[in-house]
Amino acid sequence: MTKPNLQVALDNNTLESALADVKAVGDIVDIVEAGTILILQEGTKAVSSLRALYPEKTIIADTKCADAGGTVAKNMADAGADWMTCICAATIPTMKAANEKIDEIQVELYGNWTKEDAQGWLDAGITQAIYHQSRDALLSGVSWGEKDLNKVKMLVDMGFRVSVTGGLSVDKLALFEGVNVYTFIAGRAITQADDPAKAAQAFQDELHRLWGE
Amino acid sequence: MTKPNLQVALDNNTLESALADVKAVGDIVDIVEAGTILILQEGTKAVSSLRALYPEKTIIADTKCADAGGTVAKNMADAGADWMTCICAATIPTMKAANEKIDEIQVELYGNWTKEDAQGWLDAGITQAIYHQSRDALLSGVSWGEKDLNKVKMLVDMGFRVSVTGGLSVDKLALFEGVNVYTFIAGRAITQADDPAKAAQAFQDELHRLWGE
Repeated sequence: MTKPNLQVALDNNTLESALADVKAVGDIVDIVEAGTILILQEGTKAVSSLRALYPEKTIIADTKCADAGGTVAKNMADAGADWMTCICAATIPTMKAANEKIDEIQVELYGNWTKEDAQGWLDAGITQAIYHQSRDALLSGVSWGEKDLNKVKMLVDMGFRVSVTGGLSVDKLALFEGVNVYTFIAGRAITQADDPAKAAQAFQDELHRLWGE
Repeated sequence: MTKPNLQVALDNNTLESALADVKAVGDIVDIVEAGTILILQEGTKAVSSLRALYPEKTIIADTKCADAGGTVAKNMADAGADWMTCICAATIPTMKAANEKIDEIQVELYGNWTKEDAQGWLDAGITQAIYHQSRDALLSGVSWGEKDLNKVKMLVDMGFRVSVTGGLSVDKLALFEGVNVYTFIAGRAITQADDPAKAAQAFQDELHRLWGE
């Protein structure tokens, strides 16, 4: 099995604090994400700044786009994003329009979605999905379980490259052992650690241990 | 029946063009919306600029928030927004967290949602919903029909104040006659008209004609 990617999510309230956070870990992680909070605060400047700092990394704009996919995707691609997220509630035409203007679209799974929806995304040429534990749901006490693992496995079996996120820490990665996860996304578990670079490296070491090279 | 509000959606790619567009119609409409495209491009500066220009108007941040509701709502409220949108796929904890940090939340209806979901939003204290025709769906040929009207009526009957948007023009307003719509949202039908002020006034005149004072 291939080692999953490690993605750092920058969900800062200011560009300055995002820049300070990414400086410590940008060279260790595989993918850098301009988080939704950050983009809503700072606009595409968040994306273009990360692109300038990390010309060789994969940069994701976590727009959670629900409509006007073509326009939003063009804007994010122009700012330097490789990939962009669409919310699962977006229509197929929105996802298709977005997919034409940027390298890849990732479908963010929140709330109600069905296997039939997922097949529709695949049929529309969308091959990445992001399985979440919502930050607010986590705050209200929900955590990772068998139900989540089964949904992730179903998506992998359908042919999606699946990213997993929401309250992940190094010790939770073993829950996913044997599952062909494409990317693990961590935010504050890395950026708010006492030593963020050490925390990012600990994620990478555990991914190597569990999934090999 | 009360005359519905008229809301202009500013879905510009730059703050400058949004400012130029709103200058002509901001005093005619009832509600000014910083559109999703604009916020993703310019960040909260879009919201704070509209607040500065129109201190007495209702300002909406169309964030289509899917997660981290408390943080996004606080940021938008700090920038001067009265109301903010959440996507229907957001969890109830996200909507509740958002609702605590800003005057009101509006649920944006895209994709799969059920009457049971809608009751859950009401039970969580969310009393505004936005019924859409997706821009991309419209581009692919879908338009307003009986199915849409029935869903709008259902939401009104449940107790929601319902905003309606997506490809609306003055001549389409009569379709909704007799329905207690709270707000009609128009974007390019106003801002891209030959005479935007005249177009906005034509919307208002038709709303008065159909719904009275």
